[in-house]
Amino acid sequence: MSERIITAAVLIIGNEILSGRTQDVNLNYLAKRLGELGVRLMEARIVPDVDHRIVKAVNELRAAYDYVFTTGGIGPTHDDITSESLAKAFGVPHILHPEAHALMAAHYAPGQLNAARLRMAMTPEGAELVTNPISKAPGYRIGNVHVLAGVPKIMQAMFEGMAHQIKGGKPVKSRSISSGVFEGALAADLKALQEKYAELDLGSYPSYSMGQVRVAIVMRGTDEARLAACAEEWKATIVRLGGTPVED
Amino acid sequence: MSERIITAAVLIIGNEILSGRTQDVNLNYLAKRLGELGVRLMEARIVPDVDHRIVKAVNELRAAYDYVFTTGGIGPTHDDITSESLAKAFGVPHILHPEAHALMAAHYAPGQLNAARLRMAMTPEGAELVTNPISKAPGYRIGNVHVLAGVPKIMQAMFEGMAHQIKGGKPVKSRSISSGVFEGALAADLKALQEKYAELDLGSYPSYSMGQVRVAIVMRGTDEARLAACAEEWKATIVRLGGTPVED
Repeated sequence: MSERIITAAVLIIGNEILSGRTQDVNLNYLAKRLGELGVRLMEARIVPDVDHRIVKAVNELRAAYDYVFTTGGIGPTHDDITSESLAKAFGVPHILHPEAHALMAAHYAPGQLNAARLRMAMTPEGAELVTNPISKAPGYRIGNVHVLAGVPKIMQAMFEGMAHQIKGGKPVKSRSISSGVFEGALAADLKALQEKYAELDLGSYPSYSMGQVRVAIVMRGTDEARLAACAEEWKATIVRLGGTPVED
Repeated sequence: MSERIITAAVLIIGNEILSGRTQDVNLNYLAKRLGELGVRLMEARIVPDVDHRIVKAVNELRAAYDYVFTTGGIGPTHDDITSESLAKAFGVPHILHPEAHALMAAHYAPGQLNAARLRMAMTPEGAELVTNPISKAPGYRIGNVHVLAGVPKIMQAMFEGMAHQIKGGKPVKSRSISSGVFEGALAADLKALQEKYAELDLGSYPSYSMGQVRVAIVMRGTDEARLAACAEEWKATIVRLGGTPVED
């Protein structure tokens, strides 16, 4: 238990998420992958394409967590202001990154690398590029902040290309056991189980389908043997409460 | 333009979102509905089921925006700590709400309203209930904070039951025009259009499907005549750039 927990935050940048135009799916992807890498996602924020809002969120999150991942706002249009904002947050110049420039120059036909596209080769000074295997314009890392694209396919490709550099702790494992026993009927036993297995994180998640309630009890932790013991105890509890436990 | 903009934030409370177990869909629902009601969603945060994290987020958000909507953490199990945290955030006692108690007592068969279920009738002192037509346990409003369920179907029913109480400004309307013209090729014209229609919010959103890029230009604002003029101008620009504009 003395092992330090490695933490992360995700910052989603984009008016389209806050207007409801776009359903974000990047947070869920990063949450799962970070868990697999032994990094605990502790917080997420969604802010609009407004520079002082991005600066404030980046600076609060990078001070509070080991890793920060931003998504969105690194394209060539006027509303893509993530990179300028990151430079402000770090108090460094926003420069044409030589490697990024070379990448972009090689990718575009002569005359096609216009001013807008050249913006995608600009980063805060000191940034280290993150490869974009899909559309070339790179993401980057500066300090503990990883700046990724907003388009899910590109974000995922960028993340997977740099995932080996992320140093996590023990991966978090989970078990999930569902039944038709209502939350109100199982709460007291679940609370007692949480107290007994204090190092695990036990959550209760009801869902409704066809007028039927299912309640999933999710157990998360790094010690598989403890998880297994907890899961077995819970299955016995569900049987005692008159339910049929199903491992999800 | 002198009309005051009514703002909101959403606070999503729950380990299940941060662990990646659950894909949040509540933010997108609230974002769309608030826009229709003339309320601008300015920020969203996702925090775990940890009381000081909830308290801090609630207090920061309620001070910064006209409305705050929380989702999650109001069930009967030990991990449902939203309500206690709200009481702490407001500095008021966490009490058994008489109306909520009566509702729950009427809903459950004699002997079924156990201690866990009774927790769902507790609110910060001074809270005004928000009806839950699905599973009875109510949400509530305290100050400018609306405390809603996490299960999407229940959250939506709660929101719709209280939506008439939300006083927004002019509803935000949008137009969206897509084409196959790349962002890098349209960015300069789009920037000029944004400068001309400064009161509108123009965003550019690429998507990739079957190896084809589509770029949607979304225009948002409260003045439909200006939106229409902007949209017509943009369609002509796309034609000039060699594309075929399609209204989404």
